[in-house]
Amino acid sequence: MPGSAVPDIVVGRLPLYLRALSQMAASGKEITSSQELGERLGISSAQIRKDLSQFGEFGKQGTGYNISFLVDQLRRILKVDQVWDVALIGVGNLGRAIAHYAGFVDRGYRVVAVFDNDPAKIGTQLGPFTVMDVTHLVEEVRGRHIGVAMLAVPAQDAQLVTERLVQAGIRAILCYAPTSILVPPTVHVQYIDPVLHLQRMTYYLG
Amino acid sequence: MPGSAVPDIVVGRLPLYLRALSQMAASGKEITSSQELGERLGISSAQIRKDLSQFGEFGKQGTGYNISFLVDQLRRILKVDQVWDVALIGVGNLGRAIAHYAGFVDRGYRVVAVFDNDPAKIGTQLGPFTVMDVTHLVEEVRGRHIGVAMLAVPAQDAQLVTERLVQAGIRAILCYAPTSILVPPTVHVQYIDPVLHLQRMTYYLG
Repeated sequence: MPGSAVPDIVVGRLPLYLRALSQMAASGKEITSSQELGERLGISSAQIRKDLSQFGEFGKQGTGYNISFLVDQLRRILKVDQVWDVALIGVGNLGRAIAHYAGFVDRGYRVVAVFDNDPAKIGTQLGPFTVMDVTHLVEEVRGRHIGVAMLAVPAQDAQLVTERLVQAGIRAILCYAPTSILVPPTVHVQYIDPVLHLQRMTYYLG
Repeated sequence: MPGSAVPDIVVGRLPLYLRALSQMAASGKEITSSQELGERLGISSAQIRKDLSQFGEFGKQGTGYNISFLVDQLRRILKVDQVWDVALIGVGNLGRAIAHYAGFVDRGYRVVAVFDNDPAKIGTQLGPFTVMDVTHLVEEVRGRHIGVAMLAVPAQDAQLVTERLVQAGIRAILCYAPTSILVPPTVHVQYIDPVLHLQRMTYYLG
């Protein structure tokens, strides 16, 4: 079955393709090629063709890819032909920036609930959200059938909150806390820690 | 020569090891093993031993790793036994969160200059920084010998600012703009786009 055993490294490139193709579509472009897409992304055209071929036949030799068709297919494959409800935990500087970020919704995600443990923040308004007490996380997340969470709490609180998220039925966690969290094998985790990326670059600098 | 031809995927794991070991050190721990480190990170102990062996002999069979020694070695390897000056471009919600983030300096980086193109922001105070006009970016970055940049501008401005950063001698760019940027082969780029990470997870969800 297509897609059943695709390596995660390939899955990780699909969002890059979708982002670039969506930008092409927004600029009014209708057709592209694996060469053109590859130049934009710094990925070889052969790699792109090979990655996409794992999911079906999306272009014809010599005529290239129909951009809006390929965008639709990638959105379906990545399950962002729907909008996922997201819980945000932690409304420090970073959490507030996330809550205000307008770039999620047209790419498949919308923050629908915001939590913190600080009595000074609980009950306050953050854009369209009222900050909720993190002690109510399990019932709120479960009651609203929220499947995805963004974790923007300090490192020392990350594991405790993670356990509540797991208990609440969360299946994917984007962890901004600069630490590793432990989850059952059924829960997906991705990390964002800018320092990890910076160190990966300065390794190469003199 | 050790370190001369280490795969980038290995380089990318070293910051994870350093982060976990630094946390162990901060909690007063002195010795660890590849098993213990692996459990904390969800990486096999064999992988950790293999990765570290590319850079030297850091532990003895049966006695484990001396944490503070290994932290020092990893800091040296990743070139964060010094502090890198960083320019931040773009002070929207995300840029402001970055400017206020306290977690950079003890891990090898400090923001020293902040730029925007909005007349309403230029000249205003952002924590310890006065926001500078991005049209002065090249002279400021070059004059201060800043080598690293964090790019938190809208997608449509990213390439233009990138060209200025390259012209100014920047050698590593952490790109928060949700788009791909083109740089000469001598310049390193890493990307942070939360949606790419979210899509990589929801692919697996029903």
